Amino acid sequence: MQIVSFTPNQIIQDRLAETLGSALVVAGDEASVFKALPAADGFIIAVQDYSDQIGRAVAATERLKWVQLLSAGFDRVQKHGVPQGTIVTNAGDALSPSVATHAVSLALAVQRGFPAMAQAQARGEWARDMQPRMTTPAEATCLIVGFGSIGREVARLMRAFGAHIVGVSRSGAASSLADEIITPAQLPDYLPKADTIVLAVPLDDSTRGLISQKELSLCKKSVVIVNIARGAVIDTNALADALEAGTIGGAGLDVTDPEPLTPGHRLWKAPNLLISPHVAAACGPLLYKRIADVACANAGRFMRGEALQNVVIG
Amino acid sequence: MQIVSFTPNQIIQDRLAETLGSALVVAGDEASVFKALPAADGFIIAVQDYSDQIGRAVAATERLKWVQLLSAGFDRVQKHGVPQGTIVTNAGDALSPSVATHAVSLALAVQRGFPAMAQAQARGEWARDMQPRMTTPAEATCLIVGFGSIGREVARLMRAFGAHIVGVSRSGAASSLADEIITPAQLPDYLPKADTIVLAVPLDDSTRGLISQKELSLCKKSVVIVNIARGAVIDTNALADALEAGTIGGAGLDVTDPEPLTPGHRLWKAPNLLISPHVAAACGPLLYKRIADVACANAGRFMRGEALQNVVIG
Repeated sequence: MQIVSFTPNQIIQDRLAETLGSALVVAGDEASVFKALPAADGFIIAVQDYSDQIGRAVAATERLKWVQLLSAGFDRVQKHGVPQGTIVTNAGDALSPSVATHAVSLALAVQRGFPAMAQAQARGEWARDMQPRMTTPAEATCLIVGFGSIGREVARLMRAFGAHIVGVSRSGAASSLADEIITPAQLPDYLPKADTIVLAVPLDDSTRGLISQKELSLCKKSVVIVNIARGAVIDTNALADALEAGTIGGAGLDVTDPEPLTPGHRLWKAPNLLISPHVAAACGPLLYKRIADVACANAGRFMRGEALQNVVIG
Repeated sequence: MQIVSFTPNQIIQDRLAETLGSALVVAGDEASVFKALPAADGFIIAVQDYSDQIGRAVAATERLKWVQLLSAGFDRVQKHGVPQGTIVTNAGDALSPSVATHAVSLALAVQRGFPAMAQAQARGEWARDMQPRMTTPAEATCLIVGFGSIGREVARLMRAFGAHIVGVSRSGAASSLADEIITPAQLPDYLPKADTIVLAVPLDDSTRGLISQKELSLCKKSVVIVNIARGAVIDTNALADALEAGTIGGAGLDVTDPEPLTPGHRLWKAPNLLISPHVAAACGPLLYKRIADVACANAGRFMRGEALQNVVIG
């Protein structure tokens, strides 16, 4: 049994060595990957390292049964495909705790007026004028669009701050983490009630432009909108219009459309907006520890011939 | 029975009217206060409206038995004193939830790199270079100095994010909200373990300069320090030195020394620092509702001749 791993991350590398022992083949560069792949039963790699060349090499393998991604996304693997019978697994929920913490951090930062305060600080001004607009999540409604592992963790955290949680899910299935669960069709009835809206849905045809001019016009003037999903879930120009006109309270965006946001884009200067550059998952060594937990659990299952978890292809 | 109230806040005024009925005398300006005070049994006022003239008028009353402050501070009342037998009560814990939420918001904002991100945003730059320094409270130690109603609420919230809570209190009495409780004398042993330090102590001789050059030198290079107590609990120049030298991770300050921070002060330009202008308690109508709850509960007790709560003088 040979499992090839290709990651520069020492925390993950060390954990894989502990779990796989002599079955582990560490590839230090792409050339080593190409050399090792034909004899490999499994292949462990982060999607950002999954180059076109590696994609073609994987698609050409005959022995490979399993690809473990050290990330949530798998678009580059889909692009080249994998041989019939090869299972692709991803990092599952390993990124959810930090992404959810980041979403709540963005919501709180905008509610507490930090974008305007940071600007006043840059000017060296003790400016208390934003005080009447400051809010907290307590006794207010937090609408969480997408109630997967990230959405549910956002719900748990916002509830600790005293928020009333409305989760939006396609199934509409009840959850102990939400006070109410609604379906996407009910959004127009619930947008006017929301004090915070957190977007945590995958991007697809049904969620592209989910928050556009019409939806924004239904929101409270004080609403804070957070996007940690994909930029295109919000209509960028409609959001910039609303921020500039002050018809919403503010926004926190970890993702934008376009992304990266282009130099000179109007969104850079929109008021009451905090932009983080698609870094929601980052949390230092803790993130790699969580990813290693998921990858090593699957490595153990693979070695024992058990069913793999977090299957995304196959 | 006559209770004089002097507050421009309509939420509080309406709630007092409900509770006190015909016993309430609403004073719309200082002249009305001076006119009504000699016949008043009780007086309800925010400390920021407690002028020198009002202080002297209160000190000269003969009938007044109770002053209810619509705030936590009572320094201006101490300055002029109250007649023998007059009890002064304050807003108690009404401000604690929003101040604690603000403290956690500051901690998260600095941990997530928002000060640097806001600067990059102002320059129109998609700058991901702070990513390796981003942290979350999870599986990390949060040291909370001062374990009163604010400190305990910070503990509850930080624990929801997965933090290990160390509370510092003079009594050293155990709390279900802390994993460990230590006394101030143990601080030098615990500062090197802290990932976040939240200062929530009253300012007195024992807490002035509590975090100075020596204490900062004991901290982790990644530590985030939050002050929602009083500015002088931290030695400002020692903090600015540490931020500028990068020997700590960052800081979030709602209070400063001097306060307001003077134009051109070096702290305005210190890196990885977020300054909010002493507004931690602000949370819109919710704050006034919480203050009204406390004031009306005491008003009911006073009318029924019961013992008052949140007594600060008397």
